[in-house]
Amino acid sequence: MSELRIGLIGGGRIGKLHGKNINTAVPGAKVVSLVEAMLDDGHRAWAAEVGIPKITKDPADIMKDKDIDAVFICSPTDTHADFIIQAAQAGKHIFCEKPIHTDIGRIKEAIAAVDKAGVKLQIGFVRRFDHNHKKVHDTVASGRLGKPHIVKITSRDPEGPPLSYIAGSGGIFMDMTIHDFDMARYLACSEVTEVTAYGAINIDPEYKKYDDVDTAAIMLKFENGAIGLIDNSRAAHYGYDQRTEVHGDKGSVLVGNDLADTSVISTADGVFCEKPTWFFLERYNNAFIAEVIGFVDAINNNKNPPVDGKDGLMAVYIALAAGKSLKENRPVKLSELMA
Amino acid sequence: MSELRIGLIGGGRIGKLHGKNINTAVPGAKVVSLVEAMLDDGHRAWAAEVGIPKITKDPADIMKDKDIDAVFICSPTDTHADFIIQAAQAGKHIFCEKPIHTDIGRIKEAIAAVDKAGVKLQIGFVRRFDHNHKKVHDTVASGRLGKPHIVKITSRDPEGPPLSYIAGSGGIFMDMTIHDFDMARYLACSEVTEVTAYGAINIDPEYKKYDDVDTAAIMLKFENGAIGLIDNSRAAHYGYDQRTEVHGDKGSVLVGNDLADTSVISTADGVFCEKPTWFFLERYNNAFIAEVIGFVDAINNNKNPPVDGKDGLMAVYIALAAGKSLKENRPVKLSELMA
Amino acid sequence: MSELRIGLIGGGRIGKLHGKNINTAVPGAKVVSLVEAMLDDGHRAWAAEVGIPKITKDPADIMKDKDIDAVFICSPTDTHADFIIQAAQAGKHIFCEKPIHTDIGRIKEAIAAVDKAGVKLQIGFVRRFDHNHKKVHDTVASGRLGKPHIVKITSRDPEGPPLSYIAGSGGIFMDMTIHDFDMARYLACSEVTEVTAYGAINIDPEYKKYDDVDTAAIMLKFENGAIGLIDNSRAAHYGYDQRTEVHGDKGSVLVGNDLADTSVISTADGVFCEKPTWFFLERYNNAFIAEVIGFVDAINNNKNPPVDGKDGLMAVYIALAAGKSLKENRPVKLSELMA
Amino acid sequence: MSELRIGLIGGGRIGKLHGKNINTAVPGAKVVSLVEAMLDDGHRAWAAEVGIPKITKDPADIMKDKDIDAVFICSPTDTHADFIIQAAQAGKHIFCEKPIHTDIGRIKEAIAAVDKAGVKLQIGFVRRFDHNHKKVHDTVASGRLGKPHIVKITSRDPEGPPLSYIAGSGGIFMDMTIHDFDMARYLACSEVTEVTAYGAINIDPEYKKYDDVDTAAIMLKFENGAIGLIDNSRAAHYGYDQRTEVHGDKGSVLVGNDLADTSVISTADGVFCEKPTWFFLERYNNAFIAEVIGFVDAINNNKNPPVDGKDGLMAVYIALAAGKSLKENRPVKLSELMA
Repeated sequence: MSELRIGLIGGGRIGKLHGKNINTAVPGAKVVSLVEAMLDDGHRAWAAEVGIPKITKDPADIMKDKDIDAVFICSPTDTHADFIIQAAQAGKHIFCEKPIHTDIGRIKEAIAAVDKAGVKLQIGFVRRFDHNHKKVHDTVASGRLGKPHIVKITSRDPEGPPLSYIAGSGGIFMDMTIHDFDMARYLACSEVTEVTAYGAINIDPEYKKYDDVDTAAIMLKFENGAIGLIDNSRAAHYGYDQRTEVHGDKGSVLVGNDLADTSVISTADGVFCEKPTWFFLERYNNAFIAEVIGFVDAINNNKNPPVDGKDGLMAVYIALAAGKSLKENRPVKLSELMA
Repeated sequence: MSELRIGLIGGGRIGKLHGKNINTAVPGAKVVSLVEAMLDDGHRAWAAEVGIPKITKDPADIMKDKDIDAVFICSPTDTHADFIIQAAQAGKHIFCEKPIHTDIGRIKEAIAAVDKAGVKLQIGFVRRFDHNHKKVHDTVASGRLGKPHIVKITSRDPEGPPLSYIAGSGGIFMDMTIHDFDMARYLACSEVTEVTAYGAINIDPEYKKYDDVDTAAIMLKFENGAIGLIDNSRAAHYGYDQRTEVHGDKGSVLVGNDLADTSVISTADGVFCEKPTWFFLERYNNAFIAEVIGFVDAINNNKNPPVDGKDGLMAVYIALAAGKSLKENRPVKLSELMA
Repeated sequence: MSELRIGLIGGGRIGKLHGKNINTAVPGAKVVSLVEAMLDDGHRAWAAEVGIPKITKDPADIMKDKDIDAVFICSPTDTHADFIIQAAQAGKHIFCEKPIHTDIGRIKEAIAAVDKAGVKLQIGFVRRFDHNHKKVHDTVASGRLGKPHIVKITSRDPEGPPLSYIAGSGGIFMDMTIHDFDMARYLACSEVTEVTAYGAINIDPEYKKYDDVDTAAIMLKFENGAIGLIDNSRAAHYGYDQRTEVHGDKGSVLVGNDLADTSVISTADGVFCEKPTWFFLERYNNAFIAEVIGFVDAINNNKNPPVDGKDGLMAVYIALAAGKSLKENRPVKLSELMA
Repeated sequence: MSELRIGLIGGGRIGKLHGKNINTAVPGAKVVSLVEAMLDDGHRAWAAEVGIPKITKDPADIMKDKDIDAVFICSPTDTHADFIIQAAQAGKHIFCEKPIHTDIGRIKEAIAAVDKAGVKLQIGFVRRFDHNHKKVHDTVASGRLGKPHIVKITSRDPEGPPLSYIAGSGGIFMDMTIHDFDMARYLACSEVTEVTAYGAINIDPEYKKYDDVDTAAIMLKFENGAIGLIDNSRAAHYGYDQRTEVHGDKGSVLVGNDLADTSVISTADGVFCEKPTWFFLERYNNAFIAEVIGFVDAINNNKNPPVDGKDGLMAVYIALAAGKSLKENRPVKLSELMA
């Protein structure tokens, strides 16, 4: 198998993360070109460091580059659908960060373009590749616990993003909980049919300005009869709190956080353990590598990507339903949005 | 302080539990009389064994007995309010198992009688006396975590009761979740204002006959801005699963289950730990003793009982709201029921 | 089966512990008489409280009391052998606190008297009845791990006894480690053949005056080929640290400490858990009850007591060998002492 | 700082591990040349894959290569001292796998050559760089626990090496426990003064042929008054068991194993957790990278290497003392060997 040659769109935090991972830790793939609209010397230095030979401001340079097999779309959310369509039309496989778009119509257009072109599209729901959450999914999928009854997800960030970011984030459900919505489908091995969302501003009153909340709880109904519960906070000062659990016919499986080390220090003052790893870069470092390995594998072996366009679409539907539920204080069926 | 002399109403499972605890493990209190409507030789033998000298079928024998300071009401739920009123009128302190009644009007009558008589009334929400849940409450109440944002309660029974019991149970919220509703108020240190309940029949299709569910999830809003999540199952085959958690301004506190022992067995086949203690008799054994010690202390030192009539009333309001929410598939404010 | 009637010799800390346990928590047994050489009003009040009708200064009162079936010897160590012999001659079953004596000859005399009289003798190695250590033993005894290879015991007190106590304690091996020596035999399911002991004074230089140490490590060889390691400290300020482990052909089993609760508190300052229960009264409370139940069962069902005279003898042999090893800085075979 | 250019001596398992780590995960260093006496196509393919341009059978090619700053000695143990001396004379910094040699005289020669040349010498005691063990050391070194009293090391391999390997291994103390001897010095922050070793053949009777044991326990005395206990097994079928602990004046610190994930699966059959990571490649993967980063840092910033020649020498002294102790069944002071 020849090496997969990748064009990277976006040299921000997540673009750099993928670029470095691909060029140091993913066998059989290489980022050969970086597109960055706001190109500066920092990007040039970074590209040199991780061994990306070409660098450009113009995405068209990548789209028309015959030497490039696939693109990684790590640009702002509102550009995702356009880049997917362009890349599909150029016959390139696509890895796109979440969410595809906040507008269902644009997502459907993007998926249609992918389907027409027959290229692969993978969405960056990285948590599916975390060793812990994957173990929950695999245990459920194996049938060891029988039918799932209850799915629980705790998802708390150690600290909120800057308020400037909140303004354009699409709200907590589209920005943060969307990962949990995908996780819910992944762990329940079933589709969500209804959502009820509660939200509160407990951390920073400024969230009110952005019509957003910083604390949330969501209940879900699944097609298979299971019920889901998600709780979110923008500020768990002890670290990134990412725990999942499924209870079923025959028992339950749950996973906790990864800790910096396994130490237990016992003194007259108490017993002290380590905190969870700080945030997603620390917790999901290996998962970010694993998702790209999965993408490369899907292309090389002509398999469905492990997280596909439908997965990207469904998570947005749930996020929109959650937003509507919070606004109208009532359960919202996904079918209302799909009509 | 002289010994508190107690009349026990009801010689069923919970009555026997209290009777034995009081006469073997609670200093300064003694059950001196048992009332049991269905009196048989088994009751007589048990009473002799635990040292209860008097035994009768007629509750009036206790009510008029000048030698009795307090009554323990462990009879069927629909008799609780009547016995409370009778005991209050007789000037006796009252410990009453949960719930006081399923009818708000009868609860209010009972509380009014207690208030008029100036006796103590304690309701049997035993979980408040569990070392684990109490630690969560105490941590929150201490202010160490700041304002509570999220309250989580997992409450799963190892196995459901007989279906015959389900018929007269008042439904899962009144029978089982009512403990969690009280726990929610206790842990959040705040009143519940709104409830949304989801329910499903995942374990036994027979629950449909009783218009009941065997799996439930409930979201709560609290006066202090916190959000609550409860999940219930009638069948966690690995044991009684009772975990609580509060997340607040400065961090979180959570407690897990007590295990039969701390063993870890590691072999080529895997790593094996102990299951949670089997059910409430095992898990809350010490809590049952502690709640009676609290009752005796409230009487001897003229303090408000640790779980009072209002606590009994509020839990029923929440249970009724949850039932209404499940039936009408919408959030239900407690104020709707209080009007 | 009629009630076992017990005479209690010694109204100190351990005597009171047994007396209260028997009269409140052990069905089928009752302490009916207390012997205390230094009898005072405190003893009288305590006896009244726990329901012991007779009280005397003279052990002979118990020995000749036809109404008494068994004695509990909780007096100072140097009186144990004498009381065993007197009780055996009086035809009474005997529960004796550890150690039987520090002199092998006296122990043998005591056991001979017991054998001749055909009464039961149980020694108070209470840790065998702890749910945790018992689980290790039972796992080994079941054969699940195959042949034992390594036996590990961590045994640390939260704080040392008063120096006045050290003076007459017989030294750390006879006073404290003797429990671990018994545990070693119990967990390895094999006899100890050789001992090497290391000791140090790390906590309090005053131990030097008493020719004793406050920190110790001991290696053991067992008949079955297993090797044992014990570590002791007189001061683990975080609580009573009692952990055991066996590694064998097919894997290992280990047990940790019981904690006051299962709480985990997570804040920006760290993650805090509970300390082990403070000392032996807290950790082994249920074990003290279980050992008496075992004693009553052995008598009622004519079984060998769960910890017998030979167990008492062997632990003293190991303690003596450890003392000799520490003094002479060499491995000491038990056969040297048995010759 | 310019890149550190490295010559790698030995293309076996450990050599390949370092080669790959350096060229993919250690910034500022690069293996530019591989020496392998038994050079074959596999070595060539591997060198190409990890980007090592030069490959040779002759170590002299590296020693005289002006382009090379440092050597990694990953050849058989009996060649280590010779290569250290040659590299030192050639003015190259040296990273040498453990042990330096099994002969004290040869070790001293090697260290003398290093001292004379003024180059850096680091020994591959990789466990010092494990996040867990380092936490124990750092906690002790910080003084948080006061003076160390007891140091405990559990070190068990999941499976023994081939018997052919045992023949030339130098015995369990020189081959396996040597890591623990270094760890003991590292964790106690003190020198070992005396060793008593117990050994047994519990796993494979063939060890007898090689005058070796497969199960061992060792007690250590340290200069600072602490006592150490090590237990070893060649076969812990549940995985690589690597736990350390220090108990001191003010409390204790301990670390357990890293697990594959944090899952807990609870069913009627029991509660199942993950096993420790399988063996040293899995457990110490990050530590292998960290030790090389430490080596590069020592060179670039002219610091003493984190594990130096004296550390290499002392571990061998302890291993020799342990061997002598096992053979003669007596405590052996290191001073006996140093005379």
